[in-house]
Amino acid sequence: MTPTQKILIIGGVAGGASAATRLRRLSESAEIIIFERGEFISFANCGLPYYIGGEITEKSALILQSPLSFKARYNIDVRIQHEIISIDRSSKTVLVKNYQTGEIYSENYDKLILSPGAKPICPDEFQSDRIFTIRNIPDTYRIKLFLDTKKPQHAVVAGGGFIGLEMTENLQRAGVNVTIVECGNHVLSTFDYDVACNVDSYIESKGVQLFLNHEIKSIIEQDGRIIVTFNQGGKIITDMIIFAVGVRPDTSFVQNAGIAANSHGAIIVTETMQTSDPDIYAIGDAVSAVNFVTENSDYIPLAGPAGKQGRIAADQICNIDSQYSGSQGSAILRIFDMTIASTGISEFNAKNSGLNYEKIFLWSSNHADYYPRAANMLIKVVFERETGKLLGTQIVGYDGVDKRCDVIATAIRAKMTACDLAKLDLCYAPPYSSVKDPVNMAGFVIDNVITGKMKIFHWHDVKELQESDNTVLLDVRTLAEYNRGHIEGFINIPVDELRNRIDELDKSKKIYVTCQVGIRGYIAVRILMQNGFDAYNLSGGYRLWSSIFVTKIQSYKR
Amino acid sequence: MTPTQKILIIGGVAGGASAATRLRRLSESAEIIIFERGEFISFANCGLPYYIGGEITEKSALILQSPLSFKARYNIDVRIQHEIISIDRSSKTVLVKNYQTGEIYSENYDKLILSPGAKPICPDEFQSDRIFTIRNIPDTYRIKLFLDTKKPQHAVVAGGGFIGLEMTENLQRAGVNVTIVECGNHVLSTFDYDVACNVDSYIESKGVQLFLNHEIKSIIEQDGRIIVTFNQGGKIITDMIIFAVGVRPDTSFVQNAGIAANSHGAIIVTETMQTSDPDIYAIGDAVSAVNFVTENSDYIPLAGPAGKQGRIAADQICNIDSQYSGSQGSAILRIFDMTIASTGISEFNAKNSGLNYEKIFLWSSNHADYYPRAANMLIKVVFERETGKLLGTQIVGYDGVDKRCDVIATAIRAKMTACDLAKLDLCYAPPYSSVKDPVNMAGFVIDNVITGKMKIFHWHDVKELQESDNTVLLDVRTLAEYNRGHIEGFINIPVDELRNRIDELDKSKKIYVTCQVGIRGYIAVRILMQNGFDAYNLSGGYRLWSSIFVTKIQSYKR
Repeated sequence: MTPTQKILIIGGVAGGASAATRLRRLSESAEIIIFERGEFISFANCGLPYYIGGEITEKSALILQSPLSFKARYNIDVRIQHEIISIDRSSKTVLVKNYQTGEIYSENYDKLILSPGAKPICPDEFQSDRIFTIRNIPDTYRIKLFLDTKKPQHAVVAGGGFIGLEMTENLQRAGVNVTIVECGNHVLSTFDYDVACNVDSYIESKGVQLFLNHEIKSIIEQDGRIIVTFNQGGKIITDMIIFAVGVRPDTSFVQNAGIAANSHGAIIVTETMQTSDPDIYAIGDAVSAVNFVTENSDYIPLAGPAGKQGRIAADQICNIDSQYSGSQGSAILRIFDMTIASTGISEFNAKNSGLNYEKIFLWSSNHADYYPRAANMLIKVVFERETGKLLGTQIVGYDGVDKRCDVIATAIRAKMTACDLAKLDLCYAPPYSSVKDPVNMAGFVIDNVITGKMKIFHWHDVKELQESDNTVLLDVRTLAEYNRGHIEGFINIPVDELRNRIDELDKSKKIYVTCQVGIRGYIAVRILMQNGFDAYNLSGGYRLWSSIFVTKIQSYKR
Repeated sequence: MTPTQKILIIGGVAGGASAATRLRRLSESAEIIIFERGEFISFANCGLPYYIGGEITEKSALILQSPLSFKARYNIDVRIQHEIISIDRSSKTVLVKNYQTGEIYSENYDKLILSPGAKPICPDEFQSDRIFTIRNIPDTYRIKLFLDTKKPQHAVVAGGGFIGLEMTENLQRAGVNVTIVECGNHVLSTFDYDVACNVDSYIESKGVQLFLNHEIKSIIEQDGRIIVTFNQGGKIITDMIIFAVGVRPDTSFVQNAGIAANSHGAIIVTETMQTSDPDIYAIGDAVSAVNFVTENSDYIPLAGPAGKQGRIAADQICNIDSQYSGSQGSAILRIFDMTIASTGISEFNAKNSGLNYEKIFLWSSNHADYYPRAANMLIKVVFERETGKLLGTQIVGYDGVDKRCDVIATAIRAKMTACDLAKLDLCYAPPYSSVKDPVNMAGFVIDNVITGKMKIFHWHDVKELQESDNTVLLDVRTLAEYNRGHIEGFINIPVDELRNRIDELDKSKKIYVTCQVGIRGYIAVRILMQNGFDAYNLSGGYRLWSSIFVTKIQSYKR
């Protein structure tokens, strides 16, 4: 780079701060100015809900850097409450408004980095000071002040995504009862229904009211309370509403400058993080990046990619050939004691992408079953049927979910196949794992599926099989388990009796086997196959089926 | 395979049980017999210490399968208290002794799988019923009975390895004070000194007495107590001794049969788990397998490889071409609240293997610092200097250590480079990680080292630098931190003042920089390099240096 290069950065949070500090470490001589519309740079945006819930008690904990500390450590000129009004690409200048003084002035640049982020979607038509969104520190203080002064008893959280669920937990922690209103048929829309429905049941067990398949029609303030009505009929009376229905790129000023963006306003960038103007870079929640798995462009607004992209933009400006190889969308949520994590693409996305995929479900303990406090998790892995390419995983459980998701995220990044998961040499001691880690087990199961040692069927196939004349539906659990609850139409032969009672089965029919979680079913299928039967195992077993049909049906009865 | 194949398995724990069940799932028609010398098959050998400490309270929790359950589920003939006396390879028969009846008989085989395991090393010359080892259920009951009836106040644990430390924790939990006697200069001999010394300090802080560099000379029982003397002088009076100084393959009967083994008695196998006799397979703690990192043969007696190898032997016998691609030695230990984990090879091994390696040290929080209960971990990564090939990692800390080690274990398996760690797209939310996960940070640091953006030096270089005239030793922490403790010879210029005070430094000398953990040192080195200085950063910073020299010196003062 030329020693006197002048770099302007729009947005001083996450990606912008990351780009600025990397730039300075690479170049002592560059002139670096950050313009931040808000009052704060480099704040802990992912920590905001925990301040509201009281788990984080100090305001100072949320603010990671200040303009003063940035100046001292990095010699970076940070201008807060400064907004970019326009960009003139021909003259390489921006027009800036200083909200502290009202002054408007122009600043030239050699390179410009756009890191404006995304803003929460909040319908304009509803006006009330009891409606909130949460994006930044002032939003957070506003909610906290409302809680402290108005003592609301009840809140509606509109949107059951990551932010919505984090806000739900923290509002409950702060003593506010919550109803989640979600337009989809499950929370966490980036997850598949069969996994997310476990989250639905769990949060209801924690006293959260869940309105699925509900769209807000109107919000009316009346006598200091809020009446929310729905397109589907019915209403809720509440004290406050948090809108957490998603975000969109905060890029209107960019589009006026003729920088290419997609129809949702996400700036289009190359793998060098350059926009359609090569002197202008864009990073973070404002950009559309490549999905590492599908290799298509995607909008994945997460903190991890933002930080990496900031570093890459800085490298590129300093002539270091870093490239962004795409986002996997690795994401994780804690709600109460539950952990939900995913990486790669969902089955829903795989289907929409036209991929020839298969999936498996697996229930595993986080550590040795005989060691105290073992907790179960449900692992879903989606993979390409022919190649075994790992497409994604979704895991719901408690301790140890994060580890398994990160291991699979690493395997996806390394372009390992699903069968390679069986070979991973992971750390084992009873408090941490089992001899065969859940990730190894996933690899074993998938290997058995791909090589044809085990044919499987799924929870959504059951209804059709129940109506067929050409099938035997076989539950191989013990009689006691069977009697406690089973799927209609399934007969019972415990796996340990199967060899002796195999003649009871009609070899001319296909045998569809289930057990509790899938392990005994696998053994039964192997016995049957080697005795000349065409046999299939229910992936995830009765436990998965009942988590979808029994628990969920009950919860719908509300 | 031929439908009537007869397979004998010697040893019904871990690998043997794994091989047997896989065999049955692959072949309903095979005749499968397990001979187990002890009374139990498939027991939780890694859980035994926790039964002694009382964390596992039920005896039944330790026994995962019984001969009866194996027969019912897998139609496998399990013969406990049966020992193999000899193998006649020419006639393909084994001679078996039934300890229940005293009978000796022969059994023929088509394929033989050897899974005899390893036995604890215990010097023959010391005889006392207060000396114990721990390998199996009877050993465990014997120790438990001794604790319950004799109420020992003090125990010596000979050996500071994994089993020794697990026994130490569990004895302390059972109310017994422990002195660890270790011949090396730190516990956990498979770890490097600079990492393991943190464990030394920690376990001493938990009230465990640690005798490093001590070898037992004699053990004498006197008046119901034990006197232990040392080659280095001195003695301890104790109530019991646990020998946990390592294991060796339990393979004498194998060697008499002319099956190739190495000088330590470990059976030599191919990647198909076949011994020098292709009809005889061997697995688990009895075999020498390939080290995945060095590609040399190695002895890595761990449960994870045993299970995988059992499965591979079964596959091979059933004409499925599975191969064992080697052990990484991934291992983990919990001692009190601390977690210590490693995968790949240590620096010590890298040096002995003649590799051109470098290493970095990193202190990282397990999750966002601003989120409550963040805990620090020390990560050491060893990599090839030229290629960036990941050789190994060692991590010591608390929560989240297991995750980072497993992620790096996966990266090693996938043959990712150390720089690739920077690109991993891992799950982030404040309770689980930071925007840049510790593993990403390791990747960033190594990338900076390999590309020359940051030159580093190490704790063991300090002494020589202190004696050199051609160096400036510079501590860039705040004055307050510096005054609380610093390395002799280091002058103080806080990083935030460095740009203004850079003229105080002599550009003709090399500048060796430290800070607390290495981050500010890196920034300082970048400032210095760009101002024409030849500058180096202390990897791991003052914190690592003092954990080795200050804390350890104090602990040696005992």
